[in-house]
Amino acid sequence: MTTTPAPPAPELRAGLPPVEARAAFRAGVVGPTTGWSASYTQTNLVVLPEDWAYDFLLFAQRNSQACPVLDVSDVGEPTTVLAPDADLRTDLPLYRVWENGEVVAEVPDVRDLWRTDLVAFQVGCSFSFEAGLQQAGIPLRHIDQGRNVAMYRTDIACRPAGRLHGPLVVSMRPIRGSQVATAVGVTARLPEVHGAPVHVGAPEALGIADLARPDYGDPVEIRADELPVFWACGVTPQAAITAARPPFAITHAPGYMFITDVGA
Amino acid sequence: MTTTPAPPAPELRAGLPPVEARAAFRAGVVGPTTGWSASYTQTNLVVLPEDWAYDFLLFAQRNSQACPVLDVSDVGEPTTVLAPDADLRTDLPLYRVWENGEVVAEVPDVRDLWRTDLVAFQVGCSFSFEAGLQQAGIPLRHIDQGRNVAMYRTDIACRPAGRLHGPLVVSMRPIRGSQVATAVGVTARLPEVHGAPVHVGAPEALGIADLARPDYGDPVEIRADELPVFWACGVTPQAAITAARPPFAITHAPGYMFITDVGA
Repeated sequence: MTTTPAPPAPELRAGLPPVEARAAFRAGVVGPTTGWSASYTQTNLVVLPEDWAYDFLLFAQRNSQACPVLDVSDVGEPTTVLAPDADLRTDLPLYRVWENGEVVAEVPDVRDLWRTDLVAFQVGCSFSFEAGLQQAGIPLRHIDQGRNVAMYRTDIACRPAGRLHGPLVVSMRPIRGSQVATAVGVTARLPEVHGAPVHVGAPEALGIADLARPDYGDPVEIRADELPVFWACGVTPQAAITAARPPFAITHAPGYMFITDVGA
Repeated sequence: MTTTPAPPAPELRAGLPPVEARAAFRAGVVGPTTGWSASYTQTNLVVLPEDWAYDFLLFAQRNSQACPVLDVSDVGEPTTVLAPDADLRTDLPLYRVWENGEVVAEVPDVRDLWRTDLVAFQVGCSFSFEAGLQQAGIPLRHIDQGRNVAMYRTDIACRPAGRLHGPLVVSMRPIRGSQVATAVGVTARLPEVHGAPVHVGAPEALGIADLARPDYGDPVEIRADELPVFWACGVTPQAAITAARPPFAITHAPGYMFITDVGA
């Protein structure tokens, strides 16, 4: 066990410049990035061998609300135009390593797993619009409680692409009925980070049996005057990796995102 | 020479349902599609061998204002979800056939050139927002005069992707100074068909030497109270094919687009 630095205090995270947030993660801080570097675009990371790159880019085109591609690396390059000084192998707080569709490790650094045939895809993340929701007066309980967002696999099938297929994954935030329209308006303006909600209320219509048991992230209380509001989620590619079983992949751990230098 | 049917009268073209427009082209009508089936999305067609498909999809992701991908066929399938009954080999008015980066033929039917390794990309076209501009009270001279839109190669380099590289191509419409803001507002709402203009006025800033000599389409008069307004254009992939010289490609002829069943 090595000693990792203490994370910045919760009240300081929103104001951290992205370069400082990435430096903290590179130094070993591990935690979900919701509420960090407010108003900057955060991304989901999907890394696949070159042999799978076309299938993934096509899957993303065919399921673009869940998978808005913001950048694709050249083959073998762990870099992105979204943050030119960053190293995608170290600058996320936590990674998942996949073999044949199974998570075989969760690690804070993938330098020793990097290969010259890997392609890194950056997919927009809904954490990018959370500051906008808060600025519009909408409280976000998971941030206020210092937790990860709740995410669920639905029974909605993505449009397949080559070998890739799987269900739509959604993130959920409880929103007061009086603020649902505002939440739709704020997020609809940001299609590159999933845009407007895909569904409001009635989780059973998405095949979600129990909101208290999310498939990824942390559960969150829903109060009597609130509705669960669901946005397409960039964990959808991880559900496709589970279903399609490519021999190797690296992703972020759900909620532990890459923070870019690009404003949301 | 075979006899081709007469095209519908100009005043009837805007009201033609897409299925009837495609039937006319399939029957042999040849002409630019600007002004046809108003308010329906039109697309640029790019057909490449499977070996080039990843480079093209990546080029489109990296140059998405010029190349908004609306659909990609499965390998060997001349079909699209944008018009399920259509045959992409016959339902455009005019095609270009390319070998090693050169146009070797312009033909109204490519059934005898189709191959099982081809992938068809649909890229959004600015003709899709022309009805919206007209409904906002902005006259479009090329439509009023029954001509193709004017298109120009610029000196702005696209971001390369694999073997593909080349200049940005733009379409140009003369707009009165008092209506430029309206034209921006109408088109900015439609990013999937190129969105807001990339440039207003001063063609020399784009490396365009002479507006009277477009690289594709027809020239159009610009009056004293008008500015040339430039939108990113889906002919950009044709400039990349010219530059990168893939062994084989099929595209639409500039201005002779595919008309989808999807509203703009």
